[in-house]
Amino acid sequence: MHRTRVRVVEDVLDANATIARANRADFERAGVRVVNLMSAPGAGKTTLLERSLARLGAGNGGPRIGVLEGDVQGTLDADRLASLHVPVVQVNTDPGFGGECHLDANMVRSALPALPLDRLDLLVIENVGNLVCPAEFRVGEDHRVMVASVTEGEDKPLKYPLMFRACELVLVNKIDLLPHLDFDLDRFLYNLDAVHPGVTRLLVSARTGEGLGAWCDWLRVAAG
Amino acid sequence: MHRTRVRVVEDVLDANATIARANRADFERAGVRVVNLMSAPGAGKTTLLERSLARLGAGNGGPRIGVLEGDVQGTLDADRLASLHVPVVQVNTDPGFGGECHLDANMVRSALPALPLDRLDLLVIENVGNLVCPAEFRVGEDHRVMVASVTEGEDKPLKYPLMFRACELVLVNKIDLLPHLDFDLDRFLYNLDAVHPGVTRLLVSARTGEGLGAWCDWLRVAAG
Repeated sequence: MHRTRVRVVEDVLDANATIARANRADFERAGVRVVNLMSAPGAGKTTLLERSLARLGAGNGGPRIGVLEGDVQGTLDADRLASLHVPVVQVNTDPGFGGECHLDANMVRSALPALPLDRLDLLVIENVGNLVCPAEFRVGEDHRVMVASVTEGEDKPLKYPLMFRACELVLVNKIDLLPHLDFDLDRFLYNLDAVHPGVTRLLVSARTGEGLGAWCDWLRVAAG
Repeated sequence: MHRTRVRVVEDVLDANATIARANRADFERAGVRVVNLMSAPGAGKTTLLERSLARLGAGNGGPRIGVLEGDVQGTLDADRLASLHVPVVQVNTDPGFGGECHLDANMVRSALPALPLDRLDLLVIENVGNLVCPAEFRVGEDHRVMVASVTEGEDKPLKYPLMFRACELVLVNKIDLLPHLDFDLDRFLYNLDAVHPGVTRLLVSARTGEGLGAWCDWLRVAAG
């Protein structure tokens, strides 16, 4: 059974890579850059986006940014972001299965017709909250960014190395809580460097706004 | 492609159910009760176990409790628990694939020979940190328990309903942080009741010990 399963997985990843390339071609044709934003559930992706898009003036004279929201069920996050008047489309991963734990290239592809790609500088894809499978499925993005909350503990890079290696930028979020946690930031960064030496990291608090300037600068550069 | 994929998924779940029944028969023969403990990454499962097993005197005259640790990679959690002198075995989900995001019945089965089931009252299976797929794979357990951290936000039951429905007990952890968060506990519990009306919930802080008495009582009853 195991060999069959590995073959099925390889076939799935091959098919995914093909569709990811098609997405990528569409993104390039439209002149839109794409960020795949990943994290564990509750690390603060949506709040970070809310605060950053408002700060950047997206939908209000700033860079033209759209969002593709991936969730197993519901439209809670899309509803939160829609109030910013940026184009938002929701993809739910539950049809046909108990719920996929990640976005794949085909799910992203199915949502593209609902987005005005030609009129966007940047598309942010908010992936399903999960530190394993999202790292294995490219969706045609230019950049992979992850959010790690300090409430999750210092050991997470060692326990989910593929995710921490897959990203070019790690946003260390909720740093406003550091005084109330037993979290050792130096040890987290040491563990991060063990699995992805020198990866860019930004310390942020979506709640207080600390560090959001640097993250918004990064988004501005990514938007081209 | 979609229909093929659904069939493959159904085959995988069928095979899983068969092996889960075999595990269950082995657990019953050995007279050991089994708890499948699930959560998002960093919700505090391992710290909860460390504190609860010490408090229960497991490995020191209390109920005889063993632990099966599921992680994509590494033995960090198993190493932490081994210091309590309880039987601990580690299952890594990464061989043969980039890393499975959940334990399945076969992975659990592969680890059983390493555990002294006949000399245990209770086996706690700490699943991979993930709010999606672990809920879909029974492993032969008697009870499914999840840990939800208050740092993850009030919306999680609505976003990951299968997980919150699959469990008979929800441990709401890290309540010592409530004064420092914008987390609305009443709204979380309202959302929890929306997807799993009346499910037992215990408010706990692994860090301060608050609420651990009730959770340890639950474990004592589960151990029989």
